[in-house]
Parts: sequence; C-alpha cells; structure tokens
Amino acid sequence: MSGEKPGLTHIDASGEAHMVDVSDKTETVRIATAEGRVKMAPETLALIRQGNAKKGDVIGTARLAGIMAAKRTADLIPLCHPLMLTKVAVEIEEDAALPGLRVTATAKLTGKTGVEMEALTAVSVACLTIYDMAKAADKAMEIGSIRLLEKSGGKSGDFRHPEAR
Amino acid sequence: MSGEKPGLTHIDASGEAHMVDVSDKTETVRIATAEGRVKMAPETLALIRQGNAKKGDVIGTARLAGIMAAKRTADLIPLCHPLMLTKVAVEIEEDAALPGLRVTATAKLTGKTGVEMEALTAVSVACLTIYDMAKAADKAMEIGSIRLLEKSGGKSGDFRHPEAR
Amino acid sequence: MSGEKPGLTHIDASGEAHMVDVSDKTETVRIATAEGRVKMAPETLALIRQGNAKKGDVIGTARLAGIMAAKRTADLIPLCHPLMLTKVAVEIEEDAALPGLRVTATAKLTGKTGVEMEALTAVSVACLTIYDMAKAADKAMEIGSIRLLEKSGGKSGDFRHPEAR
Amino acid sequence: MSGEKPGLTHIDASGEAHMVDVSDKTETVRIATAEGRVKMAPETLALIRQGNAKKGDVIGTARLAGIMAAKRTADLIPLCHPLMLTKVAVEIEEDAALPGLRVTATAKLTGKTGVEMEALTAVSVACLTIYDMAKAADKAMEIGSIRLLEKSGGKSGDFRHPEAR
Amino acid sequence: MSGEKPGLTHIDASGEAHMVDVSDKTETVRIATAEGRVKMAPETLALIRQGNAKKGDVIGTARLAGIMAAKRTADLIPLCHPLMLTKVAVEIEEDAALPGLRVTATAKLTGKTGVEMEALTAVSVACLTIYDMAKAADKAMEIGSIRLLEKSGGKSGDFRHPEAR
Amino acid sequence: MSGEKPGLTHIDASGEAHMVDVSDKTETVRIATAEGRVKMAPETLALIRQGNAKKGDVIGTARLAGIMAAKRTADLIPLCHPLMLTKVAVEIEEDAALPGLRVTATAKLTGKTGVEMEALTAVSVACLTIYDMAKAADKAMEIGSIRLLEKSGGKSGDFRHPEAR
Repeated sequence: MSGEKPGLTHIDASGEAHMVDVSDKTETVRIATAEGRVKMAPETLALIRQGNAKKGDVIGTARLAGIMAAKRTADLIPLCHPLMLTKVAVEIEEDAALPGLRVTATAKLTGKTGVEMEALTAVSVACLTIYDMAKAADKAMEIGSIRLLEKSGGKSGDFRHPEAR
Repeated sequence: MSGEKPGLTHIDASGEAHMVDVSDKTETVRIATAEGRVKMAPETLALIRQGNAKKGDVIGTARLAGIMAAKRTADLIPLCHPLMLTKVAVEIEEDAALPGLRVTATAKLTGKTGVEMEALTAVSVACLTIYDMAKAADKAMEIGSIRLLEKSGGKSGDFRHPEAR
Repeated sequence: MSGEKPGLTHIDASGEAHMVDVSDKTETVRIATAEGRVKMAPETLALIRQGNAKKGDVIGTARLAGIMAAKRTADLIPLCHPLMLTKVAVEIEEDAALPGLRVTATAKLTGKTGVEMEALTAVSVACLTIYDMAKAADKAMEIGSIRLLEKSGGKSGDFRHPEAR
Repeated sequence: MSGEKPGLTHIDASGEAHMVDVSDKTETVRIATAEGRVKMAPETLALIRQGNAKKGDVIGTARLAGIMAAKRTADLIPLCHPLMLTKVAVEIEEDAALPGLRVTATAKLTGKTGVEMEALTAVSVACLTIYDMAKAADKAMEIGSIRLLEKSGGKSGDFRHPEAR
Repeated sequence: MSGEKPGLTHIDASGEAHMVDVSDKTETVRIATAEGRVKMAPETLALIRQGNAKKGDVIGTARLAGIMAAKRTADLIPLCHPLMLTKVAVEIEEDAALPGLRVTATAKLTGKTGVEMEALTAVSVACLTIYDMAKAADKAMEIGSIRLLEKSGGKSGDFRHPEAR
Repeated sequence: MSGEKPGLTHIDASGEAHMVDVSDKTETVRIATAEGRVKMAPETLALIRQGNAKKGDVIGTARLAGIMAAKRTADLIPLCHPLMLTKVAVEIEEDAALPGLRVTATAKLTGKTGVEMEALTAVSVACLTIYDMAKAADKAMEIGSIRLLEKSGGKSGDFRHPEAR
C-alpha cells in the first residue's frame, strides 16, 4: 500500500471535501464483502443462542437491519454516491473463540462506483443492532474488526485484505 | 455482569423481537459516551493529517457525519425508540500508537430511554466516513474498539466500561 | 358516528390542508390498536408456515417492517405530527378461515396527539412486507380489513370499532 | 396459481430472509398497477366531497402522499431493491357503492426488478392519508381490497388479477 | 445587532462545528414565522393561477411540500436538534408586484430550542417545489427574500425583522 | 421565455399534480449549476471569516449539508424523480459587496431527467445551514438570488440565465 500515490480522492485541489465525479467511469459489475465482530461475555452469547434456538430473533433482526442500512448508505456517508444495489446479503454466525458473533456482508451492483461502503455499513449496523438487542444483559460488548475482506470491479481493480482468511 | 438476570429485553415472552415498552419509565437526564478507532497505515494517517492541516476535511466531515447519524439512530436500529437528543458531540483525535484516529461521541437528553445507541451510532458512522474518505489510499483500514465508555441516568444505573481509561 | 359535527380537522377555514395545531392539547397516555389481513391461496399460507417452522422469516420480517414503519409515520403521512412512541408491538397470526395472516399493531405514547396513524401504518407496512415476500408464489394476494380496533386517551375520548371482536 | 413451484424467493436455502440477487436480470420496461379502497360512512364521503368541491384537499393530499411514498418503498419494505421510478401516477375517485374512495396507482421504470411493491405502497399510503384526514369525523373507516391489478415486464411475465375488472 | 457578543454558538472553543447542548434550557412555547418569494414571468404566474383556478395544484403541492419539509429539518440541517413540532402552517399567495408568489410559514412547539429553522426550511422547500412545478414554462424564476419575520419564546427573546411589514 | 407554449408539465389534463412520465426519454449527460446568496451584517461575515480562518466550519458544514441535501431531493420535492447523481459540487465564497456569502452548486448525471432541482436544493440547504450556524449572532440575515445559472442536456436543450454573469 503506497498511500502517497492515490491520495485522498474526496479532497479536491483546494483541500475541500467533495463528492468525486464518477460521470465518466465505466459501468462494471462491482462486488464487495466486509466483515465485523461483536465480542461479548459467554453468558450473553448463550442468551442469544438460546433465543435463537427458539425464534432466531437477535440474529434475524440484525441481519435485516444490516440489509436495510446498506440501502441507506448514501444518506449516512456524506460523500457516497446514491446507487442501486442489486444484491445485499448479511450472514451472522457464532464465533466461540471471541466469544461472540461474526457478521459478513456482501453488496453488489452494476454501476460506476464501488460498493465497499455499502458492505461496511451493513456490517456496522448489524453489529450495532446486536449490541442494542443484548445490551440489557451486557453493556461491555465490543464491536471490532470491521474491514473490507475483498472487492472486485472498477478501475482500482480487485482487492483482498492481506489478513483475510 | 450476570447476563442471566437481566435477560434480553427486546425478546418478549414468546421469543419474538419487540420494542420495549418504556411508557412508565421516568424521564431522567441520560448521558452516554462511546468510542471507536480506525487503524490505518502510517502513510494514510499522514495524508489525513496533511489534509487536516490545510482544511481539516476528513476529520471535519467525519465529525458531522457522526452527529447527523446520531439523529437517525431510530431509523437504523429496528427496535430503538425515537427520541429527542439535546446534545451530540463527536471528537476525533490522532492516535499515533494505532496508528490511526480515535473517535469519541457523547449523546444526551432528558427522557425515558438511554442514549447508548445514539453515541455508538455516531461513533460507527464517523468511523465509516473516515474509511470512505481515505479508502482510495488505503483499503486495508480496520474499524474497531467500538464500545460504550460510560452512561448515566435511568433505572439500570450508571455504567463504566471496565477497560475504559 | 355523526360526521357533520367534528368535521375534517385537517381542512382549515379556507379549505386548505394543514397540520392541526396541537400546542394547547394536554399530554395524556394514548394507545391505539389496529388490524389488517392478508388473504392468500392456501398453498401460499402453507409455504409461509413451512418457512416459519424453520426460521420464521416472513412473519419475523413483516413484524420488524411494521415496527420500523410506525416510527416513520410522520415522514409518510403529510399532516401527521412527529411524535415519540414509547411502544410499538406488532403481532401476526395465521387465520385459516381467510386463509391468510392477520396483523395486529399497538402504538403507545404520552403526548398531545393520538397514535392511530402509527398503529395503522405499522399494520399496512407489515401487510405490504408479507405481500413482498410471498409474491413470487402468489400475486393475487389481497390486503384488507385495515381498521382501527380501539384507541384511548385524548380529548376525543375512547373508541372501539363497532365490528371489533 | 401454483404456489409450490415458484416458492418464496426471499427465503434462501437456509431459511433466512435475504434480498434476491437481481444482478443478472435483464433491464426491461416494467409497469404495475394496484388498487385499494377506503370504505366510510356516507356522511364522511359527503364531507370529503364538499371539501373537494372547494379546494380538493383530502384527495389532492392523498394523491401526493401516495406518489411520495412510492419513492420510499425500498426504505419501508426490508427486502425491496432500491430503484429509479420513471413514472408514478395515483388516481382517486368516489365509489358510491362502497361508499368511499377507490385509489389506483401505477408505477413504471426500465430496470431489473418489478414495481409491484411501489404501486402497492403508493395505494396503501394514499389510503392511510385519506384515513388520517377524515378520522376526526369517522374512526370506523376501513381500508381494503389492496391488490395488484396487473403488471407487465420481467421474467415472470405478465399478470392480471383474476378478479380485476 | 452586535455580532461580537453572541458569537457563533455552533462553533465550540476549538473552532469545530458542534450541536449546541440545550439540555439545561427551559421548555417554553416557541413560535417562528418566515417568508420567501418566487419571482417569475407574468405569463408563468398566469399559468399557475389558471391551474389554481381549476384544481389548485401548484400552490397546494408546494404547501404540502413545505409542511413535510419542516418535519425533516433536523435531517437536513446538520446541527439542528430533532424536535416535535405541534404546528406547521404554510400560506402561499400571489404577489402581483413581483410578479410571483409569496410563501409564509409558521412553526410552533413547546420545547428547548427555537423553530426558526423549521419555518425557514418549510419556506425554502415550498419555493423549490413551485420552481419544480413551473420550470417547464420558466427556468429563469428566482427564489429570494427568504428571511425570519419574527420569533418568540426562548432565552434569546423575541425578534421581529427590521424590514418586516 | 414564452410560458404559454410549454405549459406546466406537472399538471395533467384534468389539472391534478402528477410525476411526469420520463420512461421514453433518452439518457443523456445532464449538468445544472445554480446559485444563491446569504446577505448578512458585516460583523456576521467577519465572525464567519474568523471561524473559517481557524477551522473553516461554517462554510465547511454548509458545503456538506448542500451535498447531502442534493441526494435527498426526490424525498423533499414531491414530483421529482429519484435519480443517481454522479457528481455534486458546492462552492461557497465571500461576497464583500453583499455583504455575505455566495453559494454555487453543480449536479451531474447520465439519465432521463434534468438535475436542476438537485442543484437548487443543494444551494438552498447550504444557505439554510449558513443561517442556522450564524443565527445566534444575526437573525436578520436574508437568503436570496436562488436561481438556475445554466443547464445542459435533455430534450429542452441548454439554458443560461439571462442575468448570469
């Protein structure tokens, strides 16, 4: 990674924040996958699992919140372009080693801009929703490891996180 | 933390997700402070700092995005109550040890529900905005350590994260 | 019901639509319950039930959509006042006689305006979500019987639908 | 209608709700028309007609609310794709036989997904708005007969409701 | 007006934008009235008047857009507090001298913050809607004279624009 | 400008407001630039300039608010089509002659509808944000001269405001 070359595309010549002009970019298929984790006490994970065994609600609610948030990305992130996602998928699975839950989100479209932010926003809001639904039992939970696992499509080419499994 | 007792307030008797009825709660002053971190390559941090020296835009934009997101919390988190924040403050400072940026957010109101989610949402969206504005230079950045530092007010009493400084 | 007396409060003296001034109304506890039904082919109901037996997703998703929509009521209905719900509950149960699903929603707050529209909006969007999730199997489903079952609180007093069970 | 074949496209293999991947669908012209009805006391209809004679506000407001709601469909219905409508039309006419009002909405675009939900959402919110504006006179109104009249475009082919006039 | 004293409340000690903490402010009745004008060609005004004579749509639509926008103020203006308006009224009348239309909006609530921005936002969006609906006939229209006419309530006391009629 | 010919495209044959059907329009590159001004007391401008010298917050915040508002245009203006902007730029500069600030916004996309309203909405909300951030010092500020400077693309051809510099 050589930060000096690409620079900060959202900062224009005079240093002011701006939305990058993507008018002349080509429409290509773009996919991005991101992940994040919610670390919690083992008892909290047990509570969620138990609830999950019955009706799956913490995980089901967090999945939906993540999907819906992906559609709101351009409303939340000031310089993101509005775009029309053709797919958003959010998966949440237990990670006994944390202990806690691991959230993975994939966003996809055919368009002029990448969907990294949509995948990352889905992950973040799913994690926040997990926190919200379990916070009565455990306020010390920690959300972390939110990162882009991989992306494809677009001029900047493919990316795969160096630490991705 | 004894997860067994408080249980998951968002799961009702039959196991379905629901919005907790706070009608009979007392209106008290509620304050919550949360934090999060964006870890990046030293070159990326230098780029942001340099931009910041000129016009402060990455940090300024992320601060605003966090403040605005706090106001959208009930739109994003399915079971959060709508509420009227009387204060939202977002601070972003360099953390050379990461290296990266540390985001802190405080939310406040007089009301029937806590503002933990508002503070955590502000932190999350500010971190996502930092990622968005610097991702052309560094896609391997990682958002983490998002947690509630402290809260006060309400029936569940005060909380201070065991690992908070 | 004597429509002539109360008149249309949203139409002002000159006939123009306006938001009723509720500044001088008293804050009281207000509760409203509404219901609606989605009539479908028996095979469609079987499909939903089958899915429900596994992970409960059609019904779980529709419940969440209804809860979230209640919070957006003032955004959708032009002359509704913004308000801070303290409770929203959405229940969905099978109605073999339809055949189909019956949605019931209750909204509650302490405030100056009633929450009938919040309950009705929750029901409507939950029904729309059921339609959306099952429409690949059955486009002839019909949403109906959306009505206010009962409300309490406020100057206009309590109401109970004459045909409510 | 043979529900068994098409299945529930929003439920994936493991039974979890997800947004259908439409990336590989062809862009075609898609049109959908839906209808709904608000049944009310004859006096209520007279009040609305009278107001309408003057400034047309109940009907005019409901029409606009329906049009605006169609644009919010993907925000309201969890698994709907965001899309760019090229046309939304909402018509509201008296139905003396109900007695009440009949709402019809048409949505159109060139895209990868159908616009049934946009048409149905427009109808639902227009009906809710009629209820809201007349509820001071008549709380027993009932919203019903919300259904897809016809749709064209897309892989699933054309549809015309068996009971449509 | 002595700008030096009151200073810019949204800029904190370190010069960063922030949402003013209103937690300790008293809840008082707050009213604000703002106005704005859309100047257009006489033929455009005639067209609107003519349409208005039939169904009142340009003016009716702009009034509703203004009312709805007032409810979105905190979503649009970054440092505005969310609040619960108890009244929004928008009036639009012809001003032959411009020639064009004059928009007036009043917002009201009992709360801790003023409603100047809500009244000004209602005026601005109503003016934009007039432009949108008439722009096919006249792209040279100009929106202007948007200002606060008067406000009352709150610590800063009453205000009446020096040039208000 | 000959208003009689083009007529009001948002009013249909029967005089009701409707969203124009753009389904059959060609996708072309569309650009629109709009401007507006905020007139204020010289002391207020000095205060903003002073804050600007430090951290640029009034102007930086207003620029971001304008960019974000452009993305919300179809949510605010009832009959605007949703669209996918590929560029939004907002510039704010001092105008000592006013005295005050001059806001210019440019919106761009490849699509079926023009982006005049997006540029005008960006300008309006940036001006409102300037008012909001400086109103503690000066409530008599006036927003004006909001107009379309030029647009290109689309069937109606190019436009340049007769009074544009």
